[in-house]
Amino acid sequence: MNRDSNNTQSKKLTGEAVAEHSSKDSCWVIVHGRAYDVTEFLPEHPGGSKIILKYAGKDATEEFEPIHPPDTLDKYLDKSKHLGEVDMNTVEQEEKEFDPEEEERQKRIETMPILEQCYNLMDFEAVARRVMKKTAWAYYSSGADDEITMRENHSAYHKIWFRPRVLVDVEKVDFSTTMLGTKVDIPFYVTATALGKLGNPEGEVVLTRGAKKHNVVQMIPTLASCSFDEIIDAAEGEQVQWLQLYVNKDRAVTKRIVEHAEKRGCKGLFITVDAPQLGRREKDMRSKFSDVGSNVQGGGDVDRSQGAARAISSFIDPALSWKDIPWFLSITKMPILLKGVQCVEDVIRAIEAGVHGVVLSNHGGRQLDFARSGIEVLAEVMPVLRERGWQDRIEIYIDGGVRRATDIIKAVCLGAKGVGIGRPFLYAMSAYGLPGVDRAMQLLKDEMEMNMRLIGASKISDLNPTLVDTRGLNMHTAVVPEDTLGRNVYDPLIGPKEKAKL
Amino acid sequence: MNRDSNNTQSKKLTGEAVAEHSSKDSCWVIVHGRAYDVTEFLPEHPGGSKIILKYAGKDATEEFEPIHPPDTLDKYLDKSKHLGEVDMNTVEQEEKEFDPEEEERQKRIETMPILEQCYNLMDFEAVARRVMKKTAWAYYSSGADDEITMRENHSAYHKIWFRPRVLVDVEKVDFSTTMLGTKVDIPFYVTATALGKLGNPEGEVVLTRGAKKHNVVQMIPTLASCSFDEIIDAAEGEQVQWLQLYVNKDRAVTKRIVEHAEKRGCKGLFITVDAPQLGRREKDMRSKFSDVGSNVQGGGDVDRSQGAARAISSFIDPALSWKDIPWFLSITKMPILLKGVQCVEDVIRAIEAGVHGVVLSNHGGRQLDFARSGIEVLAEVMPVLRERGWQDRIEIYIDGGVRRATDIIKAVCLGAKGVGIGRPFLYAMSAYGLPGVDRAMQLLKDEMEMNMRLIGASKISDLNPTLVDTRGLNMHTAVVPEDTLGRNVYDPLIGPKEKAKL
Amino acid sequence: MNRDSNNTQSKKLTGEAVAEHSSKDSCWVIVHGRAYDVTEFLPEHPGGSKIILKYAGKDATEEFEPIHPPDTLDKYLDKSKHLGEVDMNTVEQEEKEFDPEEEERQKRIETMPILEQCYNLMDFEAVARRVMKKTAWAYYSSGADDEITMRENHSAYHKIWFRPRVLVDVEKVDFSTTMLGTKVDIPFYVTATALGKLGNPEGEVVLTRGAKKHNVVQMIPTLASCSFDEIIDAAEGEQVQWLQLYVNKDRAVTKRIVEHAEKRGCKGLFITVDAPQLGRREKDMRSKFSDVGSNVQGGGDVDRSQGAARAISSFIDPALSWKDIPWFLSITKMPILLKGVQCVEDVIRAIEAGVHGVVLSNHGGRQLDFARSGIEVLAEVMPVLRERGWQDRIEIYIDGGVRRATDIIKAVCLGAKGVGIGRPFLYAMSAYGLPGVDRAMQLLKDEMEMNMRLIGASKISDLNPTLVDTRGLNMHTAVVPEDTLGRNVYDPLIGPKEKAKL
Amino acid sequence: MNRDSNNTQSKKLTGEAVAEHSSKDSCWVIVHGRAYDVTEFLPEHPGGSKIILKYAGKDATEEFEPIHPPDTLDKYLDKSKHLGEVDMNTVEQEEKEFDPEEEERQKRIETMPILEQCYNLMDFEAVARRVMKKTAWAYYSSGADDEITMRENHSAYHKIWFRPRVLVDVEKVDFSTTMLGTKVDIPFYVTATALGKLGNPEGEVVLTRGAKKHNVVQMIPTLASCSFDEIIDAAEGEQVQWLQLYVNKDRAVTKRIVEHAEKRGCKGLFITVDAPQLGRREKDMRSKFSDVGSNVQGGGDVDRSQGAARAISSFIDPALSWKDIPWFLSITKMPILLKGVQCVEDVIRAIEAGVHGVVLSNHGGRQLDFARSGIEVLAEVMPVLRERGWQDRIEIYIDGGVRRATDIIKAVCLGAKGVGIGRPFLYAMSAYGLPGVDRAMQLLKDEMEMNMRLIGASKISDLNPTLVDTRGLNMHTAVVPEDTLGRNVYDPLIGPKEKAKL
Repeated sequence: MNRDSNNTQSKKLTGEAVAEHSSKDSCWVIVHGRAYDVTEFLPEHPGGSKIILKYAGKDATEEFEPIHPPDTLDKYLDKSKHLGEVDMNTVEQEEKEFDPEEEERQKRIETMPILEQCYNLMDFEAVARRVMKKTAWAYYSSGADDEITMRENHSAYHKIWFRPRVLVDVEKVDFSTTMLGTKVDIPFYVTATALGKLGNPEGEVVLTRGAKKHNVVQMIPTLASCSFDEIIDAAEGEQVQWLQLYVNKDRAVTKRIVEHAEKRGCKGLFITVDAPQLGRREKDMRSKFSDVGSNVQGGGDVDRSQGAARAISSFIDPALSWKDIPWFLSITKMPILLKGVQCVEDVIRAIEAGVHGVVLSNHGGRQLDFARSGIEVLAEVMPVLRERGWQDRIEIYIDGGVRRATDIIKAVCLGAKGVGIGRPFLYAMSAYGLPGVDRAMQLLKDEMEMNMRLIGASKISDLNPTLVDTRGLNMHTAVVPEDTLGRNVYDPLIGPKEKAKL
Repeated sequence: MNRDSNNTQSKKLTGEAVAEHSSKDSCWVIVHGRAYDVTEFLPEHPGGSKIILKYAGKDATEEFEPIHPPDTLDKYLDKSKHLGEVDMNTVEQEEKEFDPEEEERQKRIETMPILEQCYNLMDFEAVARRVMKKTAWAYYSSGADDEITMRENHSAYHKIWFRPRVLVDVEKVDFSTTMLGTKVDIPFYVTATALGKLGNPEGEVVLTRGAKKHNVVQMIPTLASCSFDEIIDAAEGEQVQWLQLYVNKDRAVTKRIVEHAEKRGCKGLFITVDAPQLGRREKDMRSKFSDVGSNVQGGGDVDRSQGAARAISSFIDPALSWKDIPWFLSITKMPILLKGVQCVEDVIRAIEAGVHGVVLSNHGGRQLDFARSGIEVLAEVMPVLRERGWQDRIEIYIDGGVRRATDIIKAVCLGAKGVGIGRPFLYAMSAYGLPGVDRAMQLLKDEMEMNMRLIGASKISDLNPTLVDTRGLNMHTAVVPEDTLGRNVYDPLIGPKEKAKL
Repeated sequence: MNRDSNNTQSKKLTGEAVAEHSSKDSCWVIVHGRAYDVTEFLPEHPGGSKIILKYAGKDATEEFEPIHPPDTLDKYLDKSKHLGEVDMNTVEQEEKEFDPEEEERQKRIETMPILEQCYNLMDFEAVARRVMKKTAWAYYSSGADDEITMRENHSAYHKIWFRPRVLVDVEKVDFSTTMLGTKVDIPFYVTATALGKLGNPEGEVVLTRGAKKHNVVQMIPTLASCSFDEIIDAAEGEQVQWLQLYVNKDRAVTKRIVEHAEKRGCKGLFITVDAPQLGRREKDMRSKFSDVGSNVQGGGDVDRSQGAARAISSFIDPALSWKDIPWFLSITKMPILLKGVQCVEDVIRAIEAGVHGVVLSNHGGRQLDFARSGIEVLAEVMPVLRERGWQDRIEIYIDGGVRRATDIIKAVCLGAKGVGIGRPFLYAMSAYGLPGVDRAMQLLKDEMEMNMRLIGASKISDLNPTLVDTRGLNMHTAVVPEDTLGRNVYDPLIGPKEKAKL
Repeated sequence: MNRDSNNTQSKKLTGEAVAEHSSKDSCWVIVHGRAYDVTEFLPEHPGGSKIILKYAGKDATEEFEPIHPPDTLDKYLDKSKHLGEVDMNTVEQEEKEFDPEEEERQKRIETMPILEQCYNLMDFEAVARRVMKKTAWAYYSSGADDEITMRENHSAYHKIWFRPRVLVDVEKVDFSTTMLGTKVDIPFYVTATALGKLGNPEGEVVLTRGAKKHNVVQMIPTLASCSFDEIIDAAEGEQVQWLQLYVNKDRAVTKRIVEHAEKRGCKGLFITVDAPQLGRREKDMRSKFSDVGSNVQGGGDVDRSQGAARAISSFIDPALSWKDIPWFLSITKMPILLKGVQCVEDVIRAIEAGVHGVVLSNHGGRQLDFARSGIEVLAEVMPVLRERGWQDRIEIYIDGGVRRATDIIKAVCLGAKGVGIGRPFLYAMSAYGLPGVDRAMQLLKDEMEMNMRLIGASKISDLNPTLVDTRGLNMHTAVVPEDTLGRNVYDPLIGPKEKAKL
């Protein structure tokens, strides 16, 4: 401790005093007007020490803010390292470099379309892509390796076609359903996605409010930008929330999280099982974000030598296995679901293990590239369960690639209880805030009502496998590489030519 | 009623007098030189009140004209609201804003190709796309959601290939056939399409004349721009017409329509069953047309909150069901066909219900996206019917995506009595009027004659399933998303390089 | 003949005298310095009267030349209409309009690649496309309707893959074979293609010389630019030629042609059975060529009203049928083959009819669009024949789309005796004359030698169906139409970025 | 011998003296400061005499260097033709022509990305493509004919998808394995590729060092730029190397090579069986490289007449056959593997012949176009072997198209012992030298660790066929050619439009 401060005294630290601690031997940083000694924490930082050292002796608030929940320092840094308030007037302001890309972005924000011009979920994505910070867009929009699975998630729905029934009375259409006993307006929930503040300064609570308005469930992410309690507190009335859980190596930590969630009223525990190690997303790495680091995708150039896995092993346990399931069942009364199951064998095993549900998911294409889409796995799973008469023993959800109400209908026809939707609401929130989320959900409801009518179903229980044609679903077709010489000599047909102008 | 007019008096209203009624509390509009008080009608307008209010107190003729049959005001507005003639000299002319897009279009019209340069149905579409008003083009050319079904309708024919027979005497080729007992020159009919005046000021009667010239049947749309009687009156001699029917919630209205049609000589009643709610077409919404509104696609930004369905429920009954069929059979002697059947189960049910035919159709891809093409459904239906020996119990038609005589031949080979063609004739009419429609039909006949010869069939009854190879038809293939990194590093082969110039 | 004479008289006609006959009532034309009265012939001209009238009273040589064999006028115009020589000095020279397209083409010819830069058959096509007259290119390169079959012909080979055998002694590779008893160097023949002079002023005799050099058979087309006898005369030594025959309605004419061919030494008669009516090729029609007309694709805008079929019925008989086959067998000892058979049923019928072979062909994709490729039909035919033990009862050839020796090998593996190659040699001839044809054939031989080695076959009889994998062949796949909104929001992955320049 | 030199004298030759021998009658060349009389060797040069004559009487070092191992002249040219040192000061320097392409390349080298920006194997290729000499890039990157197989090798992996298992303890992941008894870190080896010095002046020894660092095996190519002994000498400690062998017609030569390799410690002999004749690679021919020639792809324009096969037959024996296998087994104790086997029949034959393994390979797509990918052949082979219980009788490797650790995992799941990787390391070496190779291998290890975890496998033996879905693998799909008229008239959907700028 130096001469003029500690975290109990009233006298504020000066910027100069902090600036002296700017090396890995003594590293202080300022966050929200308070100084912290993170020297000992450096090697443990999931995002690597490099990114902290960039701000050693300086104000790190702007970088810290979007990717750490506000209770992070309280939780992970011993009180003795909390050095107290800093007189921010004494902190040297770093002059921002002129950034032509940021300038362009600001111009795009000025001309962004009004909300009413968004007619579908893709439209929010198109706007978000133009108005979000490049690094935030890269983080949200990226996937594993060649992003084949990420795109397949969406594309798989294109292989499923409808066999609608006509002359069904569809004057009244009711597409409400229940999920884990909760009555919801429409069979989707807001699935867990990390780092909401990258897209909107308020973070995940915006989604909470949108979910409330449309009476759907929100799944709270472990890696939220807001703290868990902030998100819980943002819920109103009987609003139902679930918890997505990354299991910590230290099971005591995990137990605390689970018990706290149950106490705060969470109605479902979704254990992520597809991320023993968090995936590499090269688009994200290539964006500036990799310079900045994040607490999610550890590594970056420098830390690669140690392996990304090591960097995050402190908070995600790669040793998690079926053996742990009984323990989970013992510590909570919340229904337990496994999020990230990817083949029928594991669904059967999940049922045998006594869990209450599974989410057939590949983590939005962010983990294993060439993992199959949730909808394809669903089409594999349900016939086997039906053969065994097990189709009602658990609730089955899928996520990934849902963009249209027709996608939801396809999933429900094939046996899903509902679908999780993640990125589209992030994009709506990033572009337009709560009104964006509201409109996105309303558009889905409008589409849902119309398409239920058009397929000839007046309620969710009318949806069944005979309404869909899935013959094209299971084939992963890659066409023969193009014969470029042949293409080059072919003159495509063209329509009638205009007359020359007079 | 105000001081200076009513609809029986001789004195004309002034523009100023009308202009005073320019709010939703008192809303008058001028159409074709007559004023109407539409204040009470505002909330009932299928296209929303907003679009009417835009013309409150003004002359609305130009907007009204293409999207309402001339008898609309008589039919839907009480006589007491008909305020009588307006002295048009006293109506302030709105100065048209300079519209650079319209200017461009006028230039394109000046250089449009001559009719003889159109060699196939696609050519008319290519011309129409350039010379039609943007909003009209958007209305005609748009489809549901991602327009996947709309395009699949055409694409599906590409999966069917021929197995022609050679050394058949095809000197004389006769491709006339009968449809519902009517002898026609070629197995297509002009199917019902809405709002013909958007493309051509004369509207649907142009198609009536074209159909007469080529001896094919015209199906009259409920939502025509011309009135039903105008279209009937445009028919000559023994010319046969059918009626496409949207069923009104008020069955008395429907009954009147049906009885009137029968009385006027219609020879077939095609009840639309694929539109309990009219589809959302985003391309159309995005075009200026959504500003203007239409009586077809209710909603638009403002009315979305109430749901598009409500907006149109006054004239299309979403409760229509199989239970209504006996009633229809009881009120008319016209053969009844269900237009929009989409799977074999419903074809069987239709036969059991005693109707005279079905149209396997997805409404030109304008209703449910991912509905299958008519030709694919046909290939599903016929083998089942043949197995039951039911193939001759009804007449089966298909529509959607037909552009070539080979498409017609494929449909007939697979068991269709004929095909409906809609948009192509609209485009021909929009670009070139009646001569366009005439040439489009003649081109189909020329293609038909040639291709009948080339497949080795001298008459319609020669066409049978062994002449087609449909193995590729049922597979909805979406290829694995492209590996962009791989593509980017590949240098396509190129042909020999030119010598440098001397 | 002295300076001022005609073929009975000594005095030459003057240009002015000819120019007086410039209407359909009296129509004279000059060809190669001689005048002809074609008034009565006008309605019979296969290419329509319009094109002749364009030259009424004028010198038509330039237009006449490439599309009529030199003996045309002798054959089709009564001697009494041959008016004798014209003093060409008295004929007014038409000034050629400046043609910027032609100018561009001349520039391209100056910089055309040297022959040695052509490494494969596609390369000749790439060069020909740039240096040929636009109308000639359009005539050669066009196909029926949407040209789907034309391109499928080539594309179908891409669905067949090899299962090579290794460790086979392939030091000596012999890919000679026999066709109809003739020993040839390699299993291809030069198939019949019309109007050779469009590409090269010497016409089909260039192909004759190329075929001689490489010891392959040439099939002489009915619609050659050179006369039949010129082509026969161009053959050397024991060189074998076949005749492709369009059957005339007047069987006496046909008989004369066949007997003459046999007498002149033709060793095979290939009766075209896929062209009861010649196909419409829109690309060709759209090019200027349609103005000029041809004796092949009758019609054009004006004559369409009468139907293209009528226009050509004088020389192709659409009534030709299986009943005619015995007559053909009776009038010649040449082996008879049916060119254009397209399904296994007709192959069986051909065998039963006693012909000596068939060519599985769709006329280079110029007749019926969506006809299957020859190679696909071959894969359908051979297993059925083998099941019956009929595989050796006839010789089976295919044509269409062959561009590589691997294509030839695939065809022979599947059971073809050989393949016909047409357009590629036309392109080679059009771009480079005989040396082009020579090099094209040599390249095929080089490829053949290499690929025989690489597949592990040292002679033609080693080629068999186990060497190919045809599982992908029969599926006519069209992928689900693209989701453009989805594509538009996806950022493709990109490789590492360059550093900024210093 | 002329007046002033021979190869034992101390006096140096002058440039002028050498320059006198500049014709095919007397042809001397200088290489690395020494003169050689190659007159008699001219007709035997595998790359043709033309390329040597280009340097007759001159210094050929720069061209000779990258494509000949340093011991070439000693091996292939009789000592009597070694004329001794040349006084290089007396040799006229040829002025280099200004080469704008080379200038551009130098600029690209200045701005090339730093190594850390390469995140995957494709990235090295992207960089190499920009910074390599055009001819070198063309040689490495080219494939046979239309390069369909070359691209299919990569694309085939896209048809295989994962069926991962979750809740497996993957804290510790060990993906080491053994290959021919050698323990390696990861199941890939550096496969043999020719002419390493084209990409890097040090040549193949760079790969040796990379392989050492990552404990994987290097396969030494017959056609290396470095001499065999140089490559062996570059190995350190117990580092294991294999030999790839082209079998010489002169078996004594082959025997010497094999015995020498065994003596120098090679642990495996991979006999190339897919190259009885080296393939034509047109991209390579088209690049300037064809001017320069190479000892690999004989021929070029001039020598084509004699056939490329003849040109190389001196060192690759096209007569090699199964009969030779016992002899190979008799001359060495090294395990013998056949590289280039391409169907299950030949794998069975290989087992029966007693060899120790096969590489399912198509030579990187450089030999027979339309040969199937190694991974597809593997999927054909293993079920047959398992049915016979033969799956452990040999080791099966595959190569071609591997770019991701997921590709390696797929291959191992399907039964491969490991995969060969060639071009990617060449590209890494060409762009960045040894650090590039090091990073490329490290990236594969990182990907491997992560993806083993994500698929739920903690060791190589956990990988099995139930983890992959290969249903799409065997279908060689080519889609129906595009309907260009239809595409041209379709307006793709677009997202919301921006507001106009103020």
